[in-house]
Formats: sequence, structure tokens, C-alpha cells
Amino acid sequence: MSGLHLLGCGSALPGEPVGNERLADRLGLSSAWVETFIGTRTRHFAVDLDSGRVRWTLEDLCTDAADRALADAGTEASEVAFVVLATATPDALMPTVAALLADRLGLDGAAAYQIQSGCSGALQALALADALLAARPDRVGLVVGGDVCSKHLDLDQDFHRLPPDALVNHVLFGDGAGAVVVGGRPRPGSRAVLGHIEHRLAGPGLPPGQRVEWYGTAELSGALRSGTPPGPAVTEDYKAVEHRVPLLARAERDDLLAASGWPPETVGHLLPPQLSGRMTARLASELRAGFEWEPVSCVAETGNNGNALVLLQLERLLPKLDPGRRALVLAVESSKWIRAGCTVEAPHG
Amino acid sequence: MSGLHLLGCGSALPGEPVGNERLADRLGLSSAWVETFIGTRTRHFAVDLDSGRVRWTLEDLCTDAADRALADAGTEASEVAFVVLATATPDALMPTVAALLADRLGLDGAAAYQIQSGCSGALQALALADALLAARPDRVGLVVGGDVCSKHLDLDQDFHRLPPDALVNHVLFGDGAGAVVVGGRPRPGSRAVLGHIEHRLAGPGLPPGQRVEWYGTAELSGALRSGTPPGPAVTEDYKAVEHRVPLLARAERDDLLAASGWPPETVGHLLPPQLSGRMTARLASELRAGFEWEPVSCVAETGNNGNALVLLQLERLLPKLDPGRRALVLAVESSKWIRAGCTVEAPHG
Repeated sequence: MSGLHLLGCGSALPGEPVGNERLADRLGLSSAWVETFIGTRTRHFAVDLDSGRVRWTLEDLCTDAADRALADAGTEASEVAFVVLATATPDALMPTVAALLADRLGLDGAAAYQIQSGCSGALQALALADALLAARPDRVGLVVGGDVCSKHLDLDQDFHRLPPDALVNHVLFGDGAGAVVVGGRPRPGSRAVLGHIEHRLAGPGLPPGQRVEWYGTAELSGALRSGTPPGPAVTEDYKAVEHRVPLLARAERDDLLAASGWPPETVGHLLPPQLSGRMTARLASELRAGFEWEPVSCVAETGNNGNALVLLQLERLLPKLDPGRRALVLAVESSKWIRAGCTVEAPHG
Repeated sequence: MSGLHLLGCGSALPGEPVGNERLADRLGLSSAWVETFIGTRTRHFAVDLDSGRVRWTLEDLCTDAADRALADAGTEASEVAFVVLATATPDALMPTVAALLADRLGLDGAAAYQIQSGCSGALQALALADALLAARPDRVGLVVGGDVCSKHLDLDQDFHRLPPDALVNHVLFGDGAGAVVVGGRPRPGSRAVLGHIEHRLAGPGLPPGQRVEWYGTAELSGALRSGTPPGPAVTEDYKAVEHRVPLLARAERDDLLAASGWPPETVGHLLPPQLSGRMTARLASELRAGFEWEPVSCVAETGNNGNALVLLQLERLLPKLDPGRRALVLAVESSKWIRAGCTVEAPHG
């Protein structure tokens, strides 16, 4: 069976889940409003909400997730030829989290790639792993995705003065990392085969649906001299997201069914794009299009942790995926409108 | 001939070159000191040194370089299946420069990857392009590398109060982008074949030789409240760089000669790691190891523009590379110690 062989997976969510009561209390929101309109029940933060102390870096979370994936696969770190790590929120610009993670795992001599990406990042990283293994299928690679929003989470600000758009971000997002060990050939204990891994730009000429800035010394010093901060670091066009994500997800679903030749009734599970808990639930039922596809989501419990999401969904899928069963993965990145997806199939008995 | 086929190249250096007199005047340095100890003669900046206005974004420079590479290759944008863009200094965290560039070039439906990387970035991007084309050699891809230091260049600061290490950064670095069009098969007019493209972590357990930070809302707001900036954004261990870069470059050179089986006397040109103008010249003569290898560098004129360097060196190499002639490319990333390289060979007549 050709494709990318999934040998094991792991994840790392920092600390205890933060519920809506706790978060609403901290942000001065109504938890009922969060439950009803957002539908995300819990999320995890790498920063302590009371002290403001950063307890985990992205590197910490990615290393924990990778360690667990290697243990799950029964793979020694010395077997790993490359790492592809996807994130929108690296700990620093240099060195990369991918290189530091590889060093912590003892992968001397390995190739360490870091992809800058959003919600399509895990699939971009899987597509690269697929290409790297196609040439050398005997090798094993590590795909990691994660995000940490600590740097953009200003806990000392007056949340009562924030506009609703900015408040929503604090409710939607969460921190975490996921990892999978992949190979170019099946091994004893292979969990699933990923096929037709693709991602493509799908919004020609459209303005970005999301922007996330970073600041340098010049902006920081300028703000200090003038006493005024620059514009908001995170901006989203929620109307555009609500309008375009379902369109792109449907197009991706149809492409995957056509490319795989799978009759829809042979698919058992759907891993839908992860937005808010509420939008994801609605989108999943639209995308099932009348078929008995069981949705596999995580965002209502993990919050939107970007590049980790697809890997966390895969981790939840595997125990449910009986021999020979099939699933579809769909992801949409609203930053510059990318649609992405892949097929998943469990080995036959 | 297998390998990655180089079909065309282009570059974009912002504005006029900034000489040492001009820079020394602006920074309150001695230009004689810069000439003697650094040896970099000119560099280009995306920001206007007088007004502080940012005149080019990284996206602008990468788009110009890519346009020129496509024209040089005689390739239509519609033929391009993917972009791999390498940078340490993206314009924003999201959307990526790779996606915005692809949109500006009209590459709807293409895959757009952005690698977070330093001086090994162009070779990392070429290695990924090689893997992506191995599976589908009929396709054409675009590899782009560039860096812009505007965000970390605070022109309003008092340069007289900076420690020497921080001042050196302003003399060493420059802005710019390079691009190449690559294919999995030779085409009429193919310029060269790149082989044995590799990069590997090569400093197990060692602290990073370079760190470049980014700041988020939390750090910015914290600085505004306290009135004090966080630590320096760019830190380098110049002693470690001076010690380790030659060691790693030699190891890479020896690996490439062994992997290619090329007798050293059949190699005509060497593209050495780009540090300061002075260190690069010394390193190049060490690395030639008694052979008649002509060094091809750019850093003394372009400044160290990170992810662009190898692509700018390739652009300078091609007009000198007669049919059947060979060259070696070496790069070292000091952030977390990566050595990288590839072979280059011009088609036979």
C-alpha cells in the first residue's frame, strides 16, 4: 500500500484545561455567552493565567509530543532521519524550534525543517514528509505541529476595554502540540496510511482572513518613545472566515473523494476544519452530506491550537479506526486561504 | 542527468548600495575600522536610512526576484506547481510571504511553503524542491530566499551607546532576495544541475551561536508599562562562529567530494559560507585546500542577507560556469549549527 505510513502519535497540552467559568472570570466575560456563541468548552495555556509566568515554551510542548509519538511507535530517536515542524508562533526567529527539538531528542545529523504556517500547517508538514520519504522509503521522519500564544497574550491589560473581536480571540485560541512518526513503508504495528496529502492556495486576489504580526526592536523602541502601542497584533475577518471556510472545505472533500475514487459510503470518519466549537459542529454536519461519517474534532476541548489540530484529531481517530476503515481529513487556513486535506485508511487486519 | 535542474535565476537588492562611508557616518563609526576588520564594502537596506521609511517589504523583494527568475528561465507563472520560500525575517507571522508572493504571481492552486531558517535556508528550500520534484519530475517549482532586517533596525536609537557586538550587526547585515526556477528534468536552456543537496544538524548539545527574537503584544505592553525594553533582539557568539564555521565547512566539503566521487581537481568554483567580507575571503582560501577553485562570493557587496546568499552566489556563478564545469556550494548556519551544501554541474555543451 503506497502513501505515508503513520507509525505512532503523541500530543502535549499544557497544564490543566481552562474552563469557560475560569476564563470568563479572568476576562470579565459571561461564560454563558461563551458557551452559546463560541461553543469551546476548555483550552490549555502555556502561561499561568494568575502569575503571567510562561511555564512551557513551544519547544517544550513539541519535545513532549515528539517523545510520546516515538514511544507510541516504538521507534528509537536514532532512526529518525528528519523533522518537519509546523507553527505560526515560533519561540524565536532563530534558532528554530525544529532544530532545538531535534537536538533535545539527540537527532545529531538529522535534517530539521520548520514550516511557518497556520491551520494547514500539519498537512503541509505531512506533504513534505511524504515527498522526503518517497525518495528514501526506508527512512523514518517526525512530523510535529504546535502553537503557543503566550507572546501575544497580555494578561495585564484591561480586558473590559477590548473590542469584541479581540476578546473572542482569547476564548478561541489555546496552546498545544501534536506529533506523528511516519515512514515510507509499512512496519509491524503501522496504524494507518495517509494518501493524497495536498494543500493549495484557494483565494486568488482575496485579502487575508487573518493576520498575525510580530514586532521588532524598531517598533518596540518607537512605541516606547511615543508611549503608544502599534495596532492590534491579531486581526481576523470573521465574516469572511464564516463564509469561505465551508466553501473551501466542500471543494477539498470533493477533490479527495475524486482523487481516491472512494465511494462516500465507504468512509467512516470525517476530521473537519477546526474553528470555534460551535462552527466546527455545524460545519461537520454540513460536510457529511447525508452520509454516516462520524466527525472527529478536538477544538471544543483543546481550543484552536493551530498547527497542532490535525495531529490531535488523528490521535483521536486512531483508536476508532477499525482495520480497513477510511477517514477524510479537511483543513482550511484563513490567513491567505489555503485548503488542505488527505485520506486515511487503516491497514486490513 | 538526475538531480535538480536549475532553469533560471533572479535577485532583488533594495535601492542603491550603501557604502561604508555613508553607514559609518550614520552609525558614528570609523569607516576605516569597517574596511579593515569587517571587509564588507556595501550592503542594501529596505528601509531609507534618513527617513526611516520602509520602502520594500520582504514580499516585494521576493516577488521581484521571482519575477526575474521566471523571465530568465522563460517559464510562465502558470507552469509553477509550488513555491518554497526561506527566510528568518517574515513580514508577519501570518499570512506567509510565500502565500502572498504566490498570489501576486497568479499561482492559484499552487502549494506555497515557507521555511523558517538562516544561512542554510536556501539549501533547505532546494532540498525540499528536490524531494517534491522527485515524485513528479515533469513539474516546475520556484525556490526563493530572502531577508529584511527593517523591523530590528532602530534608526532613532543612539548608536554611540551600543556595545561593539550590536554595532557589528548593523555593518554585517543587509537586505535582499534571490530566486531560482527549478525542474525535475532538463529543459532546453537548463543552466546547471544541483546534486547531493543536504543539510544536517552538526552541533549536538552546543548552545546556539546566534539568536534572533521576536516580540509580541505581551512583551510590548510590558515594556510600555515598565518603560524599559527587553534584552537585545539579536545576539551572536562571534567567537564560536569564528571557531566552528570553518570546521563545519570543511566537513561539508569533504562529504560532498566523497558523495559525488568528484576528484577535487575537476572542480572549478567554490561558493563558500558567507560571513563578513573579511572572514569569507580567509575561509575561501582555506577551503580551496591547494586546488585551483575560484571562489564565488557576494557578501562583501550585498551584506549578509541570510537566506538570499546562496541564491545570489548561484546567480554570480552561472555566467562563469562553462559546459561540463563543476562547483561546490557550502553554507553553515550558526543559529543551531547546521552544515549544508550541494554540487553544481553545467550541462555538457
